[in-house]
Parts: sequence; C-alpha cells; structure tokens
Amino acid sequence: MKQALSKKEIESWFKELQDSICSQLEQTDGKAKFKEDLWTREDGGGGRSRVISGGDAIEKGGVMFSAVWGKTPANILNALKLNESDFYATGVSIVIHPVNPWSPIIHMNTRYFEMSNGISWFGGGIDLTPHYVIEEDAVHFHTKVKTVCDAHHGDYYNKFKKWADDYFFIKHRNETRGVGGIFFDRLSEEKEISSRNRFEFIQDVGKLFAPLYTELLNRNRNKSYTEEEKKWQMLRRGRYVEFNLVYDIGTKFGLDTNGRTESILVSMPPVANWDYNIQPAEGSKEAYTISKLKKDINWV
Amino acid sequence: MKQALSKKEIESWFKELQDSICSQLEQTDGKAKFKEDLWTREDGGGGRSRVISGGDAIEKGGVMFSAVWGKTPANILNALKLNESDFYATGVSIVIHPVNPWSPIIHMNTRYFEMSNGISWFGGGIDLTPHYVIEEDAVHFHTKVKTVCDAHHGDYYNKFKKWADDYFFIKHRNETRGVGGIFFDRLSEEKEISSRNRFEFIQDVGKLFAPLYTELLNRNRNKSYTEEEKKWQMLRRGRYVEFNLVYDIGTKFGLDTNGRTESILVSMPPVANWDYNIQPAEGSKEAYTISKLKKDINWV
Repeated sequence: MKQALSKKEIESWFKELQDSICSQLEQTDGKAKFKEDLWTREDGGGGRSRVISGGDAIEKGGVMFSAVWGKTPANILNALKLNESDFYATGVSIVIHPVNPWSPIIHMNTRYFEMSNGISWFGGGIDLTPHYVIEEDAVHFHTKVKTVCDAHHGDYYNKFKKWADDYFFIKHRNETRGVGGIFFDRLSEEKEISSRNRFEFIQDVGKLFAPLYTELLNRNRNKSYTEEEKKWQMLRRGRYVEFNLVYDIGTKFGLDTNGRTESILVSMPPVANWDYNIQPAEGSKEAYTISKLKKDINWV
Repeated sequence: MKQALSKKEIESWFKELQDSICSQLEQTDGKAKFKEDLWTREDGGGGRSRVISGGDAIEKGGVMFSAVWGKTPANILNALKLNESDFYATGVSIVIHPVNPWSPIIHMNTRYFEMSNGISWFGGGIDLTPHYVIEEDAVHFHTKVKTVCDAHHGDYYNKFKKWADDYFFIKHRNETRGVGGIFFDRLSEEKEISSRNRFEFIQDVGKLFAPLYTELLNRNRNKSYTEEEKKWQMLRRGRYVEFNLVYDIGTKFGLDTNGRTESILVSMPPVANWDYNIQPAEGSKEAYTISKLKKDINWV
C-alpha cells in the first residue's frame, strides 16, 4: 500500500516541478535565464518567484512557487460555510508571454489546499491563449492535455475542458480568453479516486507543461511577422489583462488577502495596447481568431 | 424663483458640456480631432462617444456622453435597499492620456441619477494622475478645484478631497492612483442646498475641466524626455489599468450590467507596461513621485 500523502511531500514535489520547468524553459529559450526572488509572508510561509525576460522566444514569464499558511481569511470561511480554521496552500503558477505574435501565451497552475479541520483538495489547470488561433496548434495542445486526463479518469477531460471554457471567459467581450484547456478545483475524494491518485494527476499535468509549451514555441518562434501582427498581439495582451484583473479568482483572492502583489501580477504582459473599437476585417486572420474564441469548440 | 430641474435640462446641458470640452481640447491639441460614435442601448437610451488619438499633446482620450434608462439592476436595488424601480442616468465621463510623460493623465466625471420612486442625485469628480508628480502642477490643480468647491459650499473641498483620496486608492500597491482631486456621489438635498444649487456645482466642475487641463498640458507638452522617462510613463499607465479594472466602481458597474464595453474601457491607456518588481532608486524623481502617491497630502 502506498503511503498517505503529506503536505511536506506535496510541497517538495512542487519545488522540484518549479526547478524542472525553469530549467527546461531556459533550454528552450536558449538566451534568457530566470532570476529568483525569495520572499516570506508575514502571516506564515513564503515563496520562490522566478521571472524570465528579454529572451529569444520568451518576452516575459514567471514560474512561481509558494507555500503559505495561517488563519483562513473570513471571505473563504464564509464561502465554504465553515468556522474558524487554519489553512495551508502550496502550488506552482506560470504565465509566459512569448515574443512572436504567432506563439501563444500559456498559463498553468497546480495547487494544493488544506484546512486544519481536515478538508483538503487539489486544483489547477492549463490553458492556451494564442494571439492568432492556429488550428493544428490548438488541436495538438488539447490532444496532449486529453491524453493526460484520460490516463486518470474517463470524465476528466470533458468535465475540466468545459470548466475551462466557462472559467476563462471575458464576459464583457463575449469571448473566451483563448482556446481553453482544462480547469479544475476542489478535487476531493470521489468514489474510486484516492488522494494519491489525484496527486499523480496533478503531477502529470505539471510534467506536461514544459515539453508541450516547448513544442508550441518551437513551431512558431521563427515565423516572420508584420508590424500589424505585432500590434494585434499587443491588443490581445490587453484582453489578457482584462481577464486577469476583472475575472481571475486567483488574482482577486491574492490582491484581496494582501498577497505578494509582484508575484500575483507577474501574469501581466510586458506591454499591452488598447485601441478604441477595433473591428477586424471580415475574412481576416484576426476575424478568424475571434471566431474561435468561443466556448464548446471540440478541438480533439 | 428658479424653475425646478428636469432630466431634459440636465441631459441637454451634459451634451453641451461634451461639445464644449471636445472643441476646447481640439484647439489645445492643435492636431488631432475627435471621432464620434453614436450608440443605442437595447434596454433604453444610448450615448455619444467621442474619441481622440494620435494628437500633438494627447495620445488617446475619450469624452463620453450617455443617457440611459430602464429597469434598475438588481444589485443596485439591493445596495440601496429598494424595491423594483426604473432608473435614468446621464453624464459625461472623460479620461485623457497625454503623449509627454511630464503631462498628467486626467479624469473627470459628472453624472445625474434618478429613480422612478423620486430619489435622485448628482455625482462626479475630477482627479489628476501625473506620471511624474510636479508639485506646482498639483498645487495649481487643487487650488482651482478648491476655488470651484468653495464657491458652492465651505465643506465641499475638504470632504470631497478626502473622498477622492480614499476612492482613488490602489490597495494592493498601497498607493493612490495620482495626486487626487475631488470625488463625490449621491449629492442629495442638504439643509441649505437645493437641487438647482447642486446642478450649478456640477456645471462649474464641468466648466473647469478644459481650461485647467489645457493649462497643465501646455506647461509640459514640449518638455524633452528620455527613453527611461517614457518607460516610467508606461509603467504608471499599468497602475492606471490596475485601478480601473480592479477597483473602479463605474467600470465594474458598467461591465456587470452589459454596458457598452468600448465606451467603458476607453479609459484604458493606448499602451501600458508591466515589469517585475521595479523599485525606483532612492532620491530619484520616480521615488519622489511614489512618495507623493499618498492620502491626506494638503496640496493647497
């Protein structure tokens, strides 16, 4: 029988994941290196922020590890209908903004949450935000993600893909943030799934990240692009900002609970643009992209 | 005796204000012209959006008029502890992003809200967000604003200045958005103040805008600046985005209630930057600026 899961084991694994992803991304980029910041949280715990910028393929990115603990914030207790309790949370969170407009933005998060009353769960997800939707890249991404899901539970991909479509949605633009992926939260004991099985799922999602993004970067990093295409990238980054600041629950929660602002907002693009009322020409590749920023597209 | 105020009178005046401000700003800029968009709101009313960009002094700006009506959204009724009611809202809202980093961003809003149960009020404000705080500009701005306030009520300036300090505050950065100004909402019948007097106050705030901003632009528009100073401007614009998307009640309300997204987000800068963990050098003009982004500074 496998050993019961411990916070320590999970936290160590997340740190190794951060190490492994940073080293793979440095190798992929070939030019820029991550810079590390260690920080502590007044009320308990801290983190290891790693930020990369000015790369050959990566313009700006963060691969952030943290493990924090303390009194559970009142708004979370209310939301969960619980009395006072301590919490412990650890995870790795990533956002990468590439140089080339043909390369996609990517986000991944894997996290573990535990409360002193015994409740615990995993959460996370991985999703892709192309500036220009390239069908074969989106299909490749979803196929790889589905393979990892299918190895753990036959329902995971469909359920978590729909969750991502609903979550990564910019309501005021009536468009999804990108081509989606998977999103899941509060993974807790289901019939046949043990907490160790769930941790193995999280690990497989984590391990998928670097090779998958390397593949997508390498497919597109050397493509030539025009000034107009660069401009479009900047506008799409503006939408990324809108999603993260208006809707993202992790961002909101972090800012509301006095999280480390610089680590939370490392997801912001290095440069973003806003123009008034841009309407892509019918039949353009920009219009094609918009037409694919919809829920419920079956990419696989 | 003066005639009772009507929606029609207020709405007409706001349209004239928009005309007058646009024409003054075009004259000030000397190069760019406003482009107009008329729009209608499915549930009642519409607006006249005017946007300027690529100017000599103004990089991007919006001077937006709207008059909308319909069923009051449920969240407002709840907040006001009211039963079902119709609402009517009209106003002018402005944000201008200048070219030169030494020129300040400015925002003004004047609005009127009325409900079918008879409740009505004015709200608004004007506040200044320098990329670099220039003491004499901040003093000039506050002095002019105070003069308008003092002409209407001895308490207005202190009360509304404090309100602006509290409102235009970026909690997660522990800094104010800029050097403040005035902010007020739900101006309703006070002892000696009639609704006509309050409208006259709103009119004086509106009339102050164009000459005051013209003065501040003209003081700074021809100053030379370095690449580093331009970069700093872009970072400060990032903070402007953070405030507007995370905290601004008007933005939130607009996006939540299916407002016209392009009109609401015309406040976004044309270009903004985010860098990780920028800490201005001690004694630098950037550090001076940060030191002045605090509540409760007496500028007058």
